[in-house]
Amino acid sequence: MKTKDLSTPGALIDLDRLEHNATRMAEHTHQLGVRLRPHVKTHKCVEAARIQVRDHFGGITVSTLAEARGFAQAGFRNITYAVPIAPQKLTIALEIGLKIDRLAILIDHMETITAIEEIARTHTAVFPVWLKIDGGLHRAGVDPESELAIALATRLQNSPHIDFRGVLTHAGQSYDATNRDEVLATAQDECAVSRSFVRCLEKAKIHVPEVSIGSTPTISAARNLDGISEVRPGNYAFFDVFQSAIGSCSLDDIAFSVLATVVSVHPEEQRAVIDAGALALSKDPGPTHVDPDCGYGRIVAVEDQHPLPGLRLTSVSQEHGEIAGPGTAALRPGTHLRILPNHSCLAAACFESYDVVRGTEIVDQWRPFRGW
Amino acid sequence: MKTKDLSTPGALIDLDRLEHNATRMAEHTHQLGVRLRPHVKTHKCVEAARIQVRDHFGGITVSTLAEARGFAQAGFRNITYAVPIAPQKLTIALEIGLKIDRLAILIDHMETITAIEEIARTHTAVFPVWLKIDGGLHRAGVDPESELAIALATRLQNSPHIDFRGVLTHAGQSYDATNRDEVLATAQDECAVSRSFVRCLEKAKIHVPEVSIGSTPTISAARNLDGISEVRPGNYAFFDVFQSAIGSCSLDDIAFSVLATVVSVHPEEQRAVIDAGALALSKDPGPTHVDPDCGYGRIVAVEDQHPLPGLRLTSVSQEHGEIAGPGTAALRPGTHLRILPNHSCLAAACFESYDVVRGTEIVDQWRPFRGW
Repeated sequence: MKTKDLSTPGALIDLDRLEHNATRMAEHTHQLGVRLRPHVKTHKCVEAARIQVRDHFGGITVSTLAEARGFAQAGFRNITYAVPIAPQKLTIALEIGLKIDRLAILIDHMETITAIEEIARTHTAVFPVWLKIDGGLHRAGVDPESELAIALATRLQNSPHIDFRGVLTHAGQSYDATNRDEVLATAQDECAVSRSFVRCLEKAKIHVPEVSIGSTPTISAARNLDGISEVRPGNYAFFDVFQSAIGSCSLDDIAFSVLATVVSVHPEEQRAVIDAGALALSKDPGPTHVDPDCGYGRIVAVEDQHPLPGLRLTSVSQEHGEIAGPGTAALRPGTHLRILPNHSCLAAACFESYDVVRGTEIVDQWRPFRGW
Repeated sequence: MKTKDLSTPGALIDLDRLEHNATRMAEHTHQLGVRLRPHVKTHKCVEAARIQVRDHFGGITVSTLAEARGFAQAGFRNITYAVPIAPQKLTIALEIGLKIDRLAILIDHMETITAIEEIARTHTAVFPVWLKIDGGLHRAGVDPESELAIALATRLQNSPHIDFRGVLTHAGQSYDATNRDEVLATAQDECAVSRSFVRCLEKAKIHVPEVSIGSTPTISAARNLDGISEVRPGNYAFFDVFQSAIGSCSLDDIAFSVLATVVSVHPEEQRAVIDAGALALSKDPGPTHVDPDCGYGRIVAVEDQHPLPGLRLTSVSQEHGEIAGPGTAALRPGTHLRILPNHSCLAAACFESYDVVRGTEIVDQWRPFRGW
């Protein structure tokens, strides 16, 4: 079967590109001397994760307990759930963790530690726990310069119910960068913040077993990760238009795309409509800080993913994608187009299965774990 | 079971509010003397659609052939697929249509009519077809003032393979309005454009069996629909923050919300994080043209949906929602919150099932049709 035979909208994974991206990151992290614990939230499927962990220790990062459960059942034995855990989810995390080597969780609050200890006591269990620090993103994580940070680490180290795994951060502010140099500066900050906090903890006689940092942009840009144990990039498996805009990859590296069909054309107004809208591409606005005219994805040729100039995806509503530009003159109802998404994590999550292609040949179908 | 027992993020349908919204629209459209063919794309589930068609003729509107297939199997016998059809999907549409009274499709291009005639000839079938006109949204639809519009209608009327259903439009530009008066003006335009085009067609000796117009804002605002046969609002079943901002409803009418749990709090910086991000709420920016500070949804109390001032949902990433404001002082890891989404159609599509509540009591669970 070929891409031209597929129904639309459909999710395509380009296997050659995925393997290339995975190999490059695996080699890069070997050269940097760190363990690679890929984040699998971008694709949420076992087959892609297996390619990502080749030549590495096999650990992965997940964004939901549904992923944790699914990957555990599929044989992944060392998993970190990298969102601060809600106390109500501890029992489920424990159940999943008991079936594998380790499901590590992360915290940034005293009350969550209290909840962990209660559940651990009830079940005579020990929770592997990371301390999440705020490396500048100001989303989750404790301020590493606060007294609270030291107090949390002290309690994690001293609790008989907790296996303190170390310090974890995620420099998501790297997505605010406009080029590779700015990303590199953020990557250096991410390391510096982590190392400095570890020194503080060591002064306070707290042993930090591991230091884990994240993000595809920062790890792609990093040239020195001294003092870092492991890294958790994820998006690099697919990449997307956003990552190409900030220098993590080229457009040609993007391994995930959405196949769409033209359903309406108005050449006199240089407009057309495709059957891929917000429910197939998400409504991620993309790298508008680098390219205000980026639209909702990049339109490329179905056959070889080469860019199609003169076509812009200007708007998405629920099931309509609106295209503008002189290139619409070549479109007809029924024309297939391929869209490189602004944010592949959100676009991939729109689909219940992915068609895996080499060139235009469908070679497999993969299914992601969904929900929470 | 109560809402407090649910895992998060979760989708809640408030049944009292849904029934109230449905009844009000059913009565309003009776008063206006038009048939109500609700668009079910907002929830995509049979139970909600059954409530919407009470006291009306039972016809519905869908946005995908997956919905058409699902609702047909559930007993809905009169369905309009309201996105211009891709020629490749005609065979599937025919298969679904043969099992019910009528699956009508819509077109705005000569080549699609040619494709319809070919498939109809091959299968000795007749396709029910609407002519989609552009009522000012400039998305799909033929310009009703163009010669092409007359030519398309002429061909639809004269084709032995087509049952010409009439003229259909959707004034989606009503979403650009900032208040009810502006919506009303758009509603009047929507009717005027349709009536004027029908007069043109009648002069050209083309009989127009029906005139169908759409959109929750315009139908909610409309006071006179002379010359219109049927209306296709959909969002009104749930409503959302966007609809309340442009005057279609009050915040208290919103029947869909996302239940979330606080996972990280930083009271010293008036920040917190919930476990509902872009994959639970979508990344719809909301009614920024009315309220630039609307954020990614409105935070309300779990118990009775009353607004919680001092809390703003400022940002969403994949699995994190970031909250800011003085109200964060009252939050703890584990606190439940309820989020009224900016765009309920996109938020509902994030979930594989909905928990149906009366007050805080779970009374049912409904499953939407997904995919395409």
